[in-house]
Amino acid sequence: MTYCVGLRLDAGLVLLSDTRTNAGIDNVSVYRKMFTFEVPGERAIVLMTAGNLSVTQTVLAKLKHKISRSDASPTDSILLAESMLQVAEIVGRTLNEVSLEINQKMGAMNQMATASMLLAGQRKGGALRLFLIYREGNFIEATPDTPYLQIGEHKYGKPILDRVVTPETSLEDGRKAVLLSMDSTLRSNLSVGMPLDLAMIKTDEFRICCNERIEPGDPSFTAMSDAWSQALRDSFAEVP
Amino acid sequence: MTYCVGLRLDAGLVLLSDTRTNAGIDNVSVYRKMFTFEVPGERAIVLMTAGNLSVTQTVLAKLKHKISRSDASPTDSILLAESMLQVAEIVGRTLNEVSLEINQKMGAMNQMATASMLLAGQRKGGALRLFLIYREGNFIEATPDTPYLQIGEHKYGKPILDRVVTPETSLEDGRKAVLLSMDSTLRSNLSVGMPLDLAMIKTDEFRICCNERIEPGDPSFTAMSDAWSQALRDSFAEVP
Repeated sequence: MTYCVGLRLDAGLVLLSDTRTNAGIDNVSVYRKMFTFEVPGERAIVLMTAGNLSVTQTVLAKLKHKISRSDASPTDSILLAESMLQVAEIVGRTLNEVSLEINQKMGAMNQMATASMLLAGQRKGGALRLFLIYREGNFIEATPDTPYLQIGEHKYGKPILDRVVTPETSLEDGRKAVLLSMDSTLRSNLSVGMPLDLAMIKTDEFRICCNERIEPGDPSFTAMSDAWSQALRDSFAEVP
Repeated sequence: MTYCVGLRLDAGLVLLSDTRTNAGIDNVSVYRKMFTFEVPGERAIVLMTAGNLSVTQTVLAKLKHKISRSDASPTDSILLAESMLQVAEIVGRTLNEVSLEINQKMGAMNQMATASMLLAGQRKGGALRLFLIYREGNFIEATPDTPYLQIGEHKYGKPILDRVVTPETSLEDGRKAVLLSMDSTLRSNLSVGMPLDLAMIKTDEFRICCNERIEPGDPSFTAMSDAWSQALRDSFAEVP
């Protein structure tokens, strides 16, 4: 499985993904699920993927191919698109086309491949946007009422987000919230695994900041995880 | 959906269920999912149900019918069975028979009905037992390594159980743990709803104690829920 989460805060976007990919419980690998695209100072885009790896890798390959072509245009290159909405449309269309193509082959074998994506970013002149794109190509967007979106194994990590994340949450607290949300998920679902990829985009900076990989045993992640476990146990003892 | 949880602690059994039943999101009702059976001082049994209501109600009706018959025997009455294992076998066999019968009718309409149950209890001369019974009639049992079992929407309420419940947990802390586990589930899944039914069986008492219904707005449950929310937010603020 997978867990990817994105926050759309007033201060910026906070994005986190795991890297575990499995074909059955006995075939586990590490694959990056977070992909960044930027024209520093003009636009910054982060794409996170969940679902069938053949679908998501093909979508990424096609998006990159379109960017690299000499005849790239705003309607097919996410680095030329005129708005984040247009970026979402390009990604959605590509995901839909690849899904249909692969599912034609898989349908003949009574199999099905599904995938979904989180798209986050900002383009100069536009607002911060965070979208969840379905395999059919349609999408929804994070709003002030629900400033986060998740794909993959969303249940274990949702309660902490519901309790602490609002649009006014600082980037530092947002970072802590997504890491604790991931920590709960890692503990409960073996198909979500380290290392993690974390990225942030600060409002109106139009560049990816803090693009970091958190490896298994990372001292500060481990310390945060242990402190949270202890704090939960202490809270439990205090509740009347 | 449903959420039912049972703890098998050294001090006794703690059982909690919600009461929401729905046929689609636009047809919501309250149905008891916890059923108690006892011969005080000799045996105490609690059964909790999840899944298709036509299956679970029919199973309960058949179990009660077998108990009431003048020719009831240890192989078909859960109040005469010679061990909790035999009780689990009777419940499993009945659930399997009813599931097969109802699924014959439903299969003709391309529909399927599933159900599962938690069975908890103790009989004089035997140990406390807690079983999860599948619709096929087979079952698993709680052990000291994993002293709790859940049916229905198990994900939201699992992290708190994993962190605080061990066989040495007191009945009071066990009660708090299942209520907080239910609280997380109620917040995140609308198909789990108040009121709640809570029961406990203290080790070697062979009777149901503390069989209570917790209504919406119950002051002490609300206070516990609010205190836990506040404690989580405080803990979040404290984590480095």
